Amino acid sequence: MARVVVDVMLKPEILDPQGRAVQGALGRLGLDGVTDVRQGKHFVIDIDGDLEGERHDLMHRLADELLSNPVIESYEMRVLADGEDAS
Amino acid sequence: MARVVVDVMLKPEILDPQGRAVQGALGRLGLDGVTDVRQGKHFVIDIDGDLEGERHDLMHRLADELLSNPVIESYEMRVLADGEDAS
Repeated sequence: MARVVVDVMLKPEILDPQGRAVQGALGRLGLDGVTDVRQGKHFVIDIDGDLEGERHDLMHRLADELLSNPVIESYEMRVLADGEDAS
Repeated sequence: MARVVVDVMLKPEILDPQGRAVQGALGRLGLDGVTDVRQGKHFVIDIDGDLEGERHDLMHRLADELLSNPVIESYEMRVLADGEDAS
């Protein structure tokens, strides 16, 4: 079994109002010095068998086109080793 | 400067309809054998100075109570070393 983790974030040049709201809230709640907050999506995907070759390429394409919007978002994908933490 | 990454996921016993929808879509788009998908939130927080002692404890409390809803969600928090990847 393979566990795939995909993090999808707005591209740096895209305004992130949710992140900005969290940044303000962290400051109001007493955490000083927060210079930037970005909020994105975190997917944890469990797949039977190994994720190699064509399936790996397909997973990358789907991370780019299904899980993210390539116009405004970028993604990072990791295939975890057995027992590795998904965070 | 410290970079903090917080991943917030629904607890395992909580139904995740977004994850289920993604699971169905991955299958329809040709990726076989997807047994589970969970979708959560991914925060990348930049903070001036070190995150140690009381500030570290406060960041943990805010991750638990502001960034997540502790009734239905759990979080994992990491403080990245300089230059480490945020994914």
